[in-house]
Amino acid sequence: MEYRLGLIYGDGIGPEIVREAKKILDKVCEKYHHTFHYEELLLGGASIDVCGVPLTEETIERAKAADAVLMGSIGGDAATSPWYKLEPSKRPEAGLLGIRKALNLFANLRPAYLYQELRAACPLRSDIIGDGFDMMIMRELTGGLYFGERKTVEENGIRRAIDTLTYDENEIRRIARRGFDIARKRRKKVTSVDKANVLDSSRLWRSVVEDVAAEYPDVTLEHMLVDNCAMQLVMNPGQFDVILTENMFGDILSDEASMVTGSIGMLSSASLNETKFGLYEPSHGSAPDIAGQDKANPIATILSAAMMLRYSLDLDEEAKAVEDAVKKVLSEGYRTGDIMSEGCTLVGTRQMGDLICSRI
Amino acid sequence: MEYRLGLIYGDGIGPEIVREAKKILDKVCEKYHHTFHYEELLLGGASIDVCGVPLTEETIERAKAADAVLMGSIGGDAATSPWYKLEPSKRPEAGLLGIRKALNLFANLRPAYLYQELRAACPLRSDIIGDGFDMMIMRELTGGLYFGERKTVEENGIRRAIDTLTYDENEIRRIARRGFDIARKRRKKVTSVDKANVLDSSRLWRSVVEDVAAEYPDVTLEHMLVDNCAMQLVMNPGQFDVILTENMFGDILSDEASMVTGSIGMLSSASLNETKFGLYEPSHGSAPDIAGQDKANPIATILSAAMMLRYSLDLDEEAKAVEDAVKKVLSEGYRTGDIMSEGCTLVGTRQMGDLICSRI
Ligand SMILES: CC(C)[C@H](C(=O)O)[C@@H](O)C(=O)O
Ligand SMILES: CC(C)[C@H](C(=O)O)[C@@H](O)C(=O)O
Repeated sequence: MEYRLGLIYGDGIGPEIVREAKKILDKVCEKYHHTFHYEELLLGGASIDVCGVPLTEETIERAKAADAVLMGSIGGDAATSPWYKLEPSKRPEAGLLGIRKALNLFANLRPAYLYQELRAACPLRSDIIGDGFDMMIMRELTGGLYFGERKTVEENGIRRAIDTLTYDENEIRRIARRGFDIARKRRKKVTSVDKANVLDSSRLWRSVVEDVAAEYPDVTLEHMLVDNCAMQLVMNPGQFDVILTENMFGDILSDEASMVTGSIGMLSSASLNETKFGLYEPSHGSAPDIAGQDKANPIATILSAAMMLRYSLDLDEEAKAVEDAVKKVLSEGYRTGDIMSEGCTLVGTRQMGDLICSRI
Repeated sequence: MEYRLGLIYGDGIGPEIVREAKKILDKVCEKYHHTFHYEELLLGGASIDVCGVPLTEETIERAKAADAVLMGSIGGDAATSPWYKLEPSKRPEAGLLGIRKALNLFANLRPAYLYQELRAACPLRSDIIGDGFDMMIMRELTGGLYFGERKTVEENGIRRAIDTLTYDENEIRRIARRGFDIARKRRKKVTSVDKANVLDSSRLWRSVVEDVAAEYPDVTLEHMLVDNCAMQLVMNPGQFDVILTENMFGDILSDEASMVTGSIGMLSSASLNETKFGLYEPSHGSAPDIAGQDKANPIATILSAAMMLRYSLDLDEEAKAVEDAVKKVLSEGYRTGDIMSEGCTLVGTRQMGDLICSRI
């Protein structure tokens, strides 16, 4: 089959990890007789450098024309990057938020699981790790505080800033359905996280999620307050299957969860809309401190490419081949620096890509 | 000296832990020749049961007349408590939010530290614990999403809920100064946590915190994004001294931090206004599942009483005597169930109180 894929190399370690993922996709083409037409799209810092703004109409149009987009990481180091001198709407992240909104990518899937091979990298005590854990965080991505009205005003010489957190029932319903759909293919449990003891938006969230739950009698729903969830992720991560939550809570909890696994360099993500289209990117950031040094772990991006094969191109077998190759290389003891442990073989970004490629 | 103290017994395990803390305060009176006049105030579920509402004018007036208030935990079990059938503004937490606002308790101090005696209870790997950690979270408590305008409306038959996150520069300045004041007495480092890459309120927060930092040249300031902070608390909690943040982020991060210590049953908190007055309460919840069983750990409440002696009554020596007594009992190997480990002696709520009392 033929597909059109957008590639966003991104900032920091972005280019080098996307390069390895592309190597893997080329191998998949060769082995399974597909043709991928790649187009490079600019976003974030790279777009600022070339076009002066973090997101252009051209990037949006070309992304829309593609079957899916694979992306590296966006943004720079707040302390040293020249981008951070720009006003907020011109900074790299503005491009990321802009493309999410322009393509209506409301469903952000972030798997967080413990690789048994990488137990040693997990920051938790081994009896808390137990048999391991495997969660899917379903974060709403185009609403809430991220996209509500905001302004900074002056009242009698005193500055006041205002951000608005708002959701309507349709926005909640569509993300809730996505959460329950995924749970149905997993362990059939949804933990909906909110702050319903304080926020109106959380009370609406809770009530709509309950309505949706009635459509899925085979899936168990539980509600959890966000502060409690932040505790439970540390104390008992094994209890979670699907965590369903709004944009800001999802931002915080998904990062916490990915750090709890100890394998943030391994975790992929997908941002989906109502169609098959998706934007796929690693869960980690752009790590400008190690950019260009062949040190970055390309696995999160490679696994994001596997998610893309599965969710946007319906190439399940190919996706599984990539995931199996990753597992094989790990079980053979190859590690990049971030997941290195005693007795393993340290490899660089490129060599990790080559090893995975040759196991497909 | 003579002091007027308010006691709020609270819900769930609240009454039994406050009873132990009062025992300790009585011992302090006896030994140091003070007189404490206690007044019981109703708040939360207990107030709903007696007065039909979670907070009355009488409670507010009597709290205002006191030098300080010591409180147990508020609220019930969402699944089984009859309070949860009430509309949100009538539920126990509404009383807690109401009293914070009525008494202008904008500065919420939550220490999170690892007790060396309780290393075994810490969920983190021992090399991550390292020499331990000792943070103070300074959470803004009367602004942000908690107290912004909120409403639920219907537009063309579609429900929409709106919460507002707002801060003005004065609100930010006063909490920032409190954070820097505390840092000055500690390790002189403030980590200000925000989401300045997205929120206007965070950008104002950051700029005001920087202005305040200029008044404290001896204290180091760093900024951290909230998602990153949620990760760093798990991966490297030892890096933090004072964490300064707004209300909702503080709610989430302080609970995460207290769970990371493994000793949530040990952690006190203080909510202060511009005067010496403070409301002191344990960081943990009301644990209705073990209420009335003599199983609850009273130490967080006892240490909250110690904070009250120090911050509101200026009784430093007395505060230290209580803290030392707690340390002594722990080093002698006495433990309640939540912090029990091999080779230690299991004791109940009352016995723990008696043991601490007798070491003062
Ligand atoms: C860069 C930032 C705006 C973004 C977010 O907060 O959504 C990032 O943290 C993420 O989670 O993808
Ligand atoms: C009970 C609830 C409203 C409260 C809060 O969110 O502030 C609690 O979680 C706390 O942290 O004291």
